[in-house]
Amino acid sequence: MISRRQVFGLGAAGAVAAGAGALAARTLPAEPPAQAHVEEVFPFYGEHQAGIVTPAQDRLHFVAFDVITTDRAELAELLQEWTAAAARLTQGKEAGAFGATGGSREAAPDDTGEALGLPPSGLTLTVGFGPSLFDDRFGLAAKRPAALADLPKFPGETLVPEISGGDICVQACAHDPQVAVHAIRNLARIGFGRVSVRYSQLGFGRTSSTSRAQATARNLMGFKDGTNNLKLEDADLLREQLWAAPGDGAAWMAGGSYLVTRKIRMTVETWDRTSLREQEEIFGRDKGEGAPIGKQKEFDPVDLSAMRPDAHVRLAHPSAHGNAHLLRRGYNYVDGSDGLGRLDAGLFFIAYQRDPRTQFVPIQASLAKSDPLNEYIRHVSSGLFACPPGVVDAGDYWGRTLFA
Amino acid sequence: MISRRQVFGLGAAGAVAAGAGALAARTLPAEPPAQAHVEEVFPFYGEHQAGIVTPAQDRLHFVAFDVITTDRAELAELLQEWTAAAARLTQGKEAGAFGATGGSREAAPDDTGEALGLPPSGLTLTVGFGPSLFDDRFGLAAKRPAALADLPKFPGETLVPEISGGDICVQACAHDPQVAVHAIRNLARIGFGRVSVRYSQLGFGRTSSTSRAQATARNLMGFKDGTNNLKLEDADLLREQLWAAPGDGAAWMAGGSYLVTRKIRMTVETWDRTSLREQEEIFGRDKGEGAPIGKQKEFDPVDLSAMRPDAHVRLAHPSAHGNAHLLRRGYNYVDGSDGLGRLDAGLFFIAYQRDPRTQFVPIQASLAKSDPLNEYIRHVSSGLFACPPGVVDAGDYWGRTLFA
Repeated sequence: MISRRQVFGLGAAGAVAAGAGALAARTLPAEPPAQAHVEEVFPFYGEHQAGIVTPAQDRLHFVAFDVITTDRAELAELLQEWTAAAARLTQGKEAGAFGATGGSREAAPDDTGEALGLPPSGLTLTVGFGPSLFDDRFGLAAKRPAALADLPKFPGETLVPEISGGDICVQACAHDPQVAVHAIRNLARIGFGRVSVRYSQLGFGRTSSTSRAQATARNLMGFKDGTNNLKLEDADLLREQLWAAPGDGAAWMAGGSYLVTRKIRMTVETWDRTSLREQEEIFGRDKGEGAPIGKQKEFDPVDLSAMRPDAHVRLAHPSAHGNAHLLRRGYNYVDGSDGLGRLDAGLFFIAYQRDPRTQFVPIQASLAKSDPLNEYIRHVSSGLFACPPGVVDAGDYWGRTLFA
Repeated sequence: MISRRQVFGLGAAGAVAAGAGALAARTLPAEPPAQAHVEEVFPFYGEHQAGIVTPAQDRLHFVAFDVITTDRAELAELLQEWTAAAARLTQGKEAGAFGATGGSREAAPDDTGEALGLPPSGLTLTVGFGPSLFDDRFGLAAKRPAALADLPKFPGETLVPEISGGDICVQACAHDPQVAVHAIRNLARIGFGRVSVRYSQLGFGRTSSTSRAQATARNLMGFKDGTNNLKLEDADLLREQLWAAPGDGAAWMAGGSYLVTRKIRMTVETWDRTSLREQEEIFGRDKGEGAPIGKQKEFDPVDLSAMRPDAHVRLAHPSAHGNAHLLRRGYNYVDGSDGLGRLDAGLFFIAYQRDPRTQFVPIQASLAKSDPLNEYIRHVSSGLFACPPGVVDAGDYWGRTLFA
């Protein structure tokens, strides 16, 4: 029995060449995706928000809030308080002073305490504003970006409203779930009376690397996911495909990005009974190495003509959608089981882009129509958010360009 | 602002001495609890099952199965197949050969693939048999240990039957959730048609260290949890309090241990609005250092007389229950949110012991009656399992002493 550090098979082409049944030991990249850099600290201030091109950390706690205050000033004040807390939390500090004002033990602590003693763990916090924030409550309707157009209904989706949408989202990514959970919990605590948690989602095993220095991780179908993802090293593509520009229509979003989330339930038990050949043909890659069909290595150029016309890789390929790319940084999830003897498992898909109307929407329309993976997956939640530009310094705050 | 690596306050006694408002920087142990030893491998074969006194790994995937076959031989065969797979998985290998028998791509792979390339991550798999397995289906009724007596109903508990009980449980602990999830999923896959997943639970941030080499981690109330836990270095206490002995009544359990699980939901939002003084008095320890009330350091001897009579530490103390100890190795959980604006969060409590009738039951009876923490917690699931002795070699299997 070989170890997991060796792949369990050749690439598709190699397997054919070597004949059925041949198994070769091949060493994977030295750094496994789960190798946590617990002392890592990412800068909070900058032109763009952290947590987008930041090399994807291994754990996620994502939350969507409903705003329950109707006072615009109170909302802007909350965003300032959140920004101050996020600037501390992401640097490995507590949300606030212990024992509250003046250190008194008669007040509730300003930090909930469960991350005390834990290293910074590469925490990033990324905020986004949903379409519903631009209704008539806060006088923001005129500032709604055209790119924040409601997503169309896609064939086959069975969205659950209670875990979809949201006025404001915060994506916490870290190497330690306790650090990510702590951050979201403290933001929720600070927001008490002004926002309410609409839904939250934990994830693990980042399924898309966002840097060429990272090994490609695997989704719960067992396949490498995100081999040809947009990566932080792709400077030209990021400018063209990821960041909103001043001329894009909503000036306040310049330097920001649009986020689409989809919770994609997988019926893994059914998938696990599908033959290896069918699994690989559906994806358009071999399962062991992750090589495109007909090639031998993961990063070999994709030859779409070697695949079946509806292979997942082929349907989603930029060449099929006017060179549209996404920066994906989704996470695997398991929410226990479903009461029918099956794991409640899948992918919490996260994708950043310059304009969903020309990027996520056409790609997903094509997948929803033809992807043979649809037999094994179901989209159960959806989110769309305008993530503003970065906080440039301690005098700035999340959403200042929108509210000021 | 000090960093999280320094505690945010003095111990209770220190705070009194220094006066309210004084904050001291004190360095915590060098090794944070989340520091993952991803290359770690624990032996599978041994007198006792791994995953009990094994230094608690940081992530959990716990599953309870219903047995759906009624054929005793088929069940024993499954346990043998599971044992073979567990012996491989815990050593960082796959559940089975790739491409199934002979490496054919026409069959479903014998391993689901998502842990490929990941290091062993300290995975342990621990099996247990619930009271319901000893009904009339498999001819095991006469072998039910007296110590596996049904737990009494405790005041205030609101158990949900669908996430309680189970014929067989498997506890997977690892430094990487993807590795723990992969193991449970592959066991479920092997069990297809013979067992069905009843419920499963993910956890993170182990809340009880099981070795003096580990720093004490924190629960989601922000307190250190498990300071005086039974630890693997306590050889005499382990013999007396943890492992079933040949003379205990059920000979097949000698070298095994009894497991109690309780899913304890915390209303963290309410807790977070409670004053620091009240939080500390309820627990009987200070929050920063974890020192017992009236003392300065975490491991200072507990002075029960310095605490309020119903302090959590005091109610659960061995001296109040005929020197009864538990080996706890619970995990924090967040299952998203509850639809009422709150996180669905708490503690998945796990405790091993020699006899629940004289250990967990009296301790929990006392807590259920008087613990002021009850205002902030609710027991929503319960499990009880007889975990057999270890698998001694490749010819042995999980439960052989019960079935053979």
